[in-house]
Amino acid sequence: MARILLLQGPNMSYLGRRQPELYGTTTAAELDALLTRHAAAKGIDLEIRYTHVEGEAIAAIYRAVEQGVGGVVMNPAGFTQGGFALRDCLAAVPVPYIEVHMTNIEKRGVRSVTAASAVGVIAGLGVQSYVLALDAMAERLR
Amino acid sequence: MARILLLQGPNMSYLGRRQPELYGTTTAAELDALLTRHAAAKGIDLEIRYTHVEGEAIAAIYRAVEQGVGGVVMNPAGFTQGGFALRDCLAAVPVPYIEVHMTNIEKRGVRSVTAASAVGVIAGLGVQSYVLALDAMAERLR
Amino acid sequence: MARILLLQGPNMSYLGRRQPELYGTTTAAELDALLTRHAAAKGIDLEIRYTHVEGEAIAAIYRAVEQGVGGVVMNPAGFTQGGFALRDCLAAVPVPYIEVHMTNIEKRGVRSVTAASAVGVIAGLGVQSYVLALDAMAERLR
Amino acid sequence: MARILLLQGPNMSYLGRRQPELYGTTTAAELDALLTRHAAAKGIDLEIRYTHVEGEAIAAIYRAVEQGVGGVVMNPAGFTQGGFALRDCLAAVPVPYIEVHMTNIEKRGVRSVTAASAVGVIAGLGVQSYVLALDAMAERLR
Amino acid sequence: MARILLLQGPNMSYLGRRQPELYGTTTAAELDALLTRHAAAKGIDLEIRYTHVEGEAIAAIYRAVEQGVGGVVMNPAGFTQGGFALRDCLAAVPVPYIEVHMTNIEKRGVRSVTAASAVGVIAGLGVQSYVLALDAMAERLR
Amino acid sequence: MARILLLQGPNMSYLGRRQPELYGTTTAAELDALLTRHAAAKGIDLEIRYTHVEGEAIAAIYRAVEQGVGGVVMNPAGFTQGGFALRDCLAAVPVPYIEVHMTNIEKRGVRSVTAASAVGVIAGLGVQSYVLALDAMAERLR
Amino acid sequence: MARILLLQGPNMSYLGRRQPELYGTTTAAELDALLTRHAAAKGIDLEIRYTHVEGEAIAAIYRAVEQGVGGVVMNPAGFTQGGFALRDCLAAVPVPYIEVHMTNIEKRGVRSVTAASAVGVIAGLGVQSYVLALDAMAERLR
Amino acid sequence: MARILLLQGPNMSYLGRRQPELYGTTTAAELDALLTRHAAAKGIDLEIRYTHVEGEAIAAIYRAVEQGVGGVVMNPAGFTQGGFALRDCLAAVPVPYIEVHMTNIEKRGVRSVTAASAVGVIAGLGVQSYVLALDAMAERLR
Amino acid sequence: MARILLLQGPNMSYLGRRQPELYGTTTAAELDALLTRHAAAKGIDLEIRYTHVEGEAIAAIYRAVEQGVGGVVMNPAGFTQGGFALRDCLAAVPVPYIEVHMTNIEKRGVRSVTAASAVGVIAGLGVQSYVLALDAMAERLR
Amino acid sequence: MARILLLQGPNMSYLGRRQPELYGTTTAAELDALLTRHAAAKGIDLEIRYTHVEGEAIAAIYRAVEQGVGGVVMNPAGFTQGGFALRDCLAAVPVPYIEVHMTNIEKRGVRSVTAASAVGVIAGLGVQSYVLALDAMAERLR
Amino acid sequence: MARILLLQGPNMSYLGRRQPELYGTTTAAELDALLTRHAAAKGIDLEIRYTHVEGEAIAAIYRAVEQGVGGVVMNPAGFTQGGFALRDCLAAVPVPYIEVHMTNIEKRGVRSVTAASAVGVIAGLGVQSYVLALDAMAERLR
Amino acid sequence: MARILLLQGPNMSYLGRRQPELYGTTTAAELDALLTRHAAAKGIDLEIRYTHVEGEAIAAIYRAVEQGVGGVVMNPAGFTQGGFALRDCLAAVPVPYIEVHMTNIEKRGVRSVTAASAVGVIAGLGVQSYVLALDAMAERLR
Repeated sequence: MARILLLQGPNMSYLGRRQPELYGTTTAAELDALLTRHAAAKGIDLEIRYTHVEGEAIAAIYRAVEQGVGGVVMNPAGFTQGGFALRDCLAAVPVPYIEVHMTNIEKRGVRSVTAASAVGVIAGLGVQSYVLALDAMAERLR
Repeated sequence: MARILLLQGPNMSYLGRRQPELYGTTTAAELDALLTRHAAAKGIDLEIRYTHVEGEAIAAIYRAVEQGVGGVVMNPAGFTQGGFALRDCLAAVPVPYIEVHMTNIEKRGVRSVTAASAVGVIAGLGVQSYVLALDAMAERLR
Repeated sequence: MARILLLQGPNMSYLGRRQPELYGTTTAAELDALLTRHAAAKGIDLEIRYTHVEGEAIAAIYRAVEQGVGGVVMNPAGFTQGGFALRDCLAAVPVPYIEVHMTNIEKRGVRSVTAASAVGVIAGLGVQSYVLALDAMAERLR
Repeated sequence: MARILLLQGPNMSYLGRRQPELYGTTTAAELDALLTRHAAAKGIDLEIRYTHVEGEAIAAIYRAVEQGVGGVVMNPAGFTQGGFALRDCLAAVPVPYIEVHMTNIEKRGVRSVTAASAVGVIAGLGVQSYVLALDAMAERLR
Repeated sequence: MARILLLQGPNMSYLGRRQPELYGTTTAAELDALLTRHAAAKGIDLEIRYTHVEGEAIAAIYRAVEQGVGGVVMNPAGFTQGGFALRDCLAAVPVPYIEVHMTNIEKRGVRSVTAASAVGVIAGLGVQSYVLALDAMAERLR
Repeated sequence: MARILLLQGPNMSYLGRRQPELYGTTTAAELDALLTRHAAAKGIDLEIRYTHVEGEAIAAIYRAVEQGVGGVVMNPAGFTQGGFALRDCLAAVPVPYIEVHMTNIEKRGVRSVTAASAVGVIAGLGVQSYVLALDAMAERLR
Repeated sequence: MARILLLQGPNMSYLGRRQPELYGTTTAAELDALLTRHAAAKGIDLEIRYTHVEGEAIAAIYRAVEQGVGGVVMNPAGFTQGGFALRDCLAAVPVPYIEVHMTNIEKRGVRSVTAASAVGVIAGLGVQSYVLALDAMAERLR
Repeated sequence: MARILLLQGPNMSYLGRRQPELYGTTTAAELDALLTRHAAAKGIDLEIRYTHVEGEAIAAIYRAVEQGVGGVVMNPAGFTQGGFALRDCLAAVPVPYIEVHMTNIEKRGVRSVTAASAVGVIAGLGVQSYVLALDAMAERLR
Repeated sequence: MARILLLQGPNMSYLGRRQPELYGTTTAAELDALLTRHAAAKGIDLEIRYTHVEGEAIAAIYRAVEQGVGGVVMNPAGFTQGGFALRDCLAAVPVPYIEVHMTNIEKRGVRSVTAASAVGVIAGLGVQSYVLALDAMAERLR
Repeated sequence: MARILLLQGPNMSYLGRRQPELYGTTTAAELDALLTRHAAAKGIDLEIRYTHVEGEAIAAIYRAVEQGVGGVVMNPAGFTQGGFALRDCLAAVPVPYIEVHMTNIEKRGVRSVTAASAVGVIAGLGVQSYVLALDAMAERLR
Repeated sequence: MARILLLQGPNMSYLGRRQPELYGTTTAAELDALLTRHAAAKGIDLEIRYTHVEGEAIAAIYRAVEQGVGGVVMNPAGFTQGGFALRDCLAAVPVPYIEVHMTNIEKRGVRSVTAASAVGVIAGLGVQSYVLALDAMAERLR
Repeated sequence: MARILLLQGPNMSYLGRRQPELYGTTTAAELDALLTRHAAAKGIDLEIRYTHVEGEAIAAIYRAVEQGVGGVVMNPAGFTQGGFALRDCLAAVPVPYIEVHMTNIEKRGVRSVTAASAVGVIAGLGVQSYVLALDAMAERLR
């Protein structure tokens, strides 16, 4: 059974109230419910973590890998442009990483430093970006 | 029923023989068969076009839109860095565009100019990038 | 009698339907009619060509010059930023070239590489940009 | 009747004696006569001002707008690369601005900061650049 | 017997009439005759193709490689600065590529993107650049 | 009554001992006392927080906004150049943000990324920068 | 009693009519009245000068300093990006300079060259930017 | 007796398992033992701290300085490129800082922002980088 | 007899009081006296003009040239970095221009745009820069 | 009879032992023998010089030109990126210069400053680069 | 027994008299004595060479390697920013290179091109930089 | 009596034969004679040295300073753009340096790195540049 850690970067807990014209009106709680249901249906063991602190995200990844997680899905959010330590962490661990963005960051002129450690990037498809990333990771871990 | 145009940019017809360490060993014909089957199973009416000529890609998009296609999925390949005319075309037509790359172009330091006209980008997941893009477009067109 | 080749670059055939807030609602057919009438009234022998393919534009220019055209007016459109071959072609032929843009590309931060081969540039005046360019070319060929 | 202010930036009063290989041999006085005749024939009420001082150009524009001028045509000349205050002024007033250059500044690698406030730009056609700009402005004010 | 495809990029068919101070007065036809004679004398099976369209050059290369051509010699001409798709094509095929320029592009400040796929570059020696490239390719294919 | 959160970024707790030629000799404790007195006199309900951790600053802002704070005043200090997540947070919350710097960062060649989410910036006036920012925020919240 | 020179750069006399969504609807006359009242209440001897000409601003500063002014407050407006001579002047005189902007120039991507000679900068707070600057200067001159 | 704080930045706790071709196979625990022995032999009172959180590193430095530490040795690791707050902290404290990298970051094209606050930098010598840094700091504190 | 116009750019009238560690303590009046004496001794007819306004400098140059001045010596001072109009003026007039700086601007990282129109530049030698420039101009006009 | 000076830049004497994967295993002595035989066969009077010192290369060129050498062939090697003095020398002498590189420097992202003084450049063909350059120079000197 | 070549780049022979606030007052002779004693104590066979000429440094390295030196320690000094040939030499030889700087070049904004060929870099520790580099090299050669 | 070392950089010995349209027809020998006469007349003890090797220039400067030379005048010529070691040398010695260029390097877009160590720069005045530099140095040494 595929075990996946889903990390939500800074400000994602505010989802649904933050720039809804960019990020939609789904709240963090609703997104968690939706993804948990989707994971259950696909036979994925999903752990979701929110954090505003880059170092905590790093610690969470090392801990999860030690406990046998098979892959990391992350929306780096506020870590996207300055997350060098996170990038190094994701390059260091022996599990694949898929990066998720709700908006098309390329169109908004944002460069992701964490993407350099990703096997793939899915961007611009709102809530569906997460669903596709879980599917892609599950497929990869099969 | 969702109608989707899948465009394959320059050099994609050579797939399977070109840098297999980057692009895998699936040939263009095998990829077409795989995607056609997937589309049929999902109830997608899929048209696949290969071209090395940017102007032909533009003409194909205008023609498809006039014939009622609901969305464009494209791997711009060799058009990625210089396809300004293609970018303008995709911004002009009233149907959504999802961009596909088999490799994680962000990691390779390649900037896509066509991505500026996309609703979403899926990169780095090899053949699966196409499958996810078709799913995402079908979802969007529902 | 002045003979002028008017070239319309990629996406111009879609005029009137493409970003009308930028390019207005005049269609390509209406623009052709308007310019043909204007040319006739001014005694200009006008040939209009649309193409999405840079190499076709180049071939059209060489052919027209061989057949005695006295000047080239072109809206490079999608060729504006990457048309190096077109720029070289326009520098090679012994007839003047006037560049036309419907929008003020300078304001939009776009640099034209083809403009390096132009005697003049007229930008930002919509349909009138073409009319003024034909007048300027006719004046020059007198 | 269209009322137009034509502003000539720094060094334009020296026209005809300054780099004639670039700017031709028409003097400022001859250019004024030519444009005044052309304006009269087209039913344009034309006021011509020369100034070397950017602040004086700004003051002239505000005064003209208060007195009912309908549009501004300007060859920014020496203000082209550093005229930020002029750019702000032209963006502030409620009348259109058309920018004129006798030479093709794009070919010479010069970027215009004032062009950001223009509805259109006409460059590279020598004395005719002015004639076309007056025609374009008159057309616009009709 | 060495089989070589010689590709001439955009504007090369205009050779002899285009900026003769840069490119000399030898016409395309004379160059073809000269190179065909040289190839015959050296026992090279030479095919020469001219095209203004990047996608046609790509197709010609794939076709030639399938038909057993052993190497590609090309003057990218107008493709030099924007030919990303051509660069990818030349990197994909399993035959060597030698790039030719009649002028010293380094001195003119031009960067070649296609050169990244070349085994060698010969520039600045006019018609002789071609002769040396054929010799070098024949040597390599021995 | 105006409720304001004052955030002090990394190293500000060391105030008075850190580069006194730049930041003066007032300690953090003295600054707090001074600002608390000033707030009381102006009828401002002021909460002061120091943190070296960007994610804690973000959490503090969300918590304060939920508890009814009307505005955020912050000296981003060490977050100024890399605080992308903080910038996103300040753009997300529905209360105004005023940025404070004790030194004139423009003169020192420092660019602030958090300033992109501020309604205003006050820099270079030492301790007085804070006093003015509180006054400005109180005025705004009236 | 503190004597302060307030300089208003180019286009500020047009305040209230110029881009009111950016600068509000307060006119220059209303602003002068408001600041004069505020100065009187605070015991500041305030002289207000408007100019479109950078050299006049420089002359006004030297004259004011000779007549005993204790500080300069300025909204450089149109001088912000090109006012090198003004920057040198403000660095030369032995009185402090505080820079004022009605909008948050950092958010708009504008760099101020005159700020290099300022002790402090107050930006983004509309009319209040001026009030705070006068307060800060008065405090400094005490 | 010299008291030194050794700080290990993000991901250093994963040493020995992380990209061993770059960082070797010595684990964090083995490194600590080795350095503790070396310190004891040299009469250095050594405290070692690992953290993934920049703000915690800052707090640790202030605390150590207050408790009488004479110098800081740090491998900024993941803080190297974005550690502006850490750089400011190290500039603020009155004790010397020596920066350590196991790899030659210059060769890898990485710029260190924290190095701006260092008296010296030792890079590229693997585990020995630490040993030399301790020796250098002890020498300096003598 | 050589007739020379010496132009002093913005802030030069403040000489002797402005950053004396850079510009020395000689006042503008003393400098004028010194140069007038030197000119008289060398048989140079010298006219000295100070201005803060770029447009006035331009007008002064045109007027002087019309009145028979043989050369222009100028310290562009505050015009150095933004004096595009002045640069064009000096390129337009048929008399040589020698540029003077009291300090070594190259060492201070300042680029002169007006130097592009100079036959020569003398920098860094304080008051002597002027003396040498007069000598050089007189020599040239002989 | 054509007299040619062949200059080998820094590190070339180490050929065959230096990065053989890039430069092959032919030693400098073997290369000299090969080229001397080739020159003899073609009737070329060839002088070969190795130097690590740029100034010695310059002196050798001036001396050779004075002694009647008709052309210079050089592999600038370690002078490629910093050889400004060599570039000036090669531009100064009245004999043609052909530049040689064993590897395709364009592909390695290296810009040659000496190439600006060359009539032609031959790169990427290993030992054959030298042979072709001698042939090209001999042809040119005929 | 470890044999090490220590190279001192341009200006190092002037040590002790050159900018002592940066480089200290130890003279070159004193430094040599100190390092010779240190080497003797550590059982290192040390050869010290000073040169202002990059080509001589290159020759010295090749000669030393041929004579069996095991490693090179160098302070590139004036070669740091332009020593491309030296960098190539150090990459070519089969012995390790450790780079030394007396000052923290990173803090001074200097980039080293020779560092790209180093296994390690030690900077900013004055005379001790050399001592540590010898120790590191000896350790490495053990 | 003022003792001055005049250094002539690479290619200067070729003066009179090298690009005479830029550098005139005066030969190195004629220039030496002219300057020696001028020095004698002014009571200057002048030593002239030509070298193509940067390290020799450095050695010459140290030697001259040890022998009591009071100032260095140099035309860096081919060292201008890459002479970092020379720049450091000139900053190290306790005598002033004046830099000479026969042409206006600013107009030619050349940046001098050695100028950073100069007290003054004289450029663009041909042979007279040297004469003025000697006068300026003599004046300074008085």
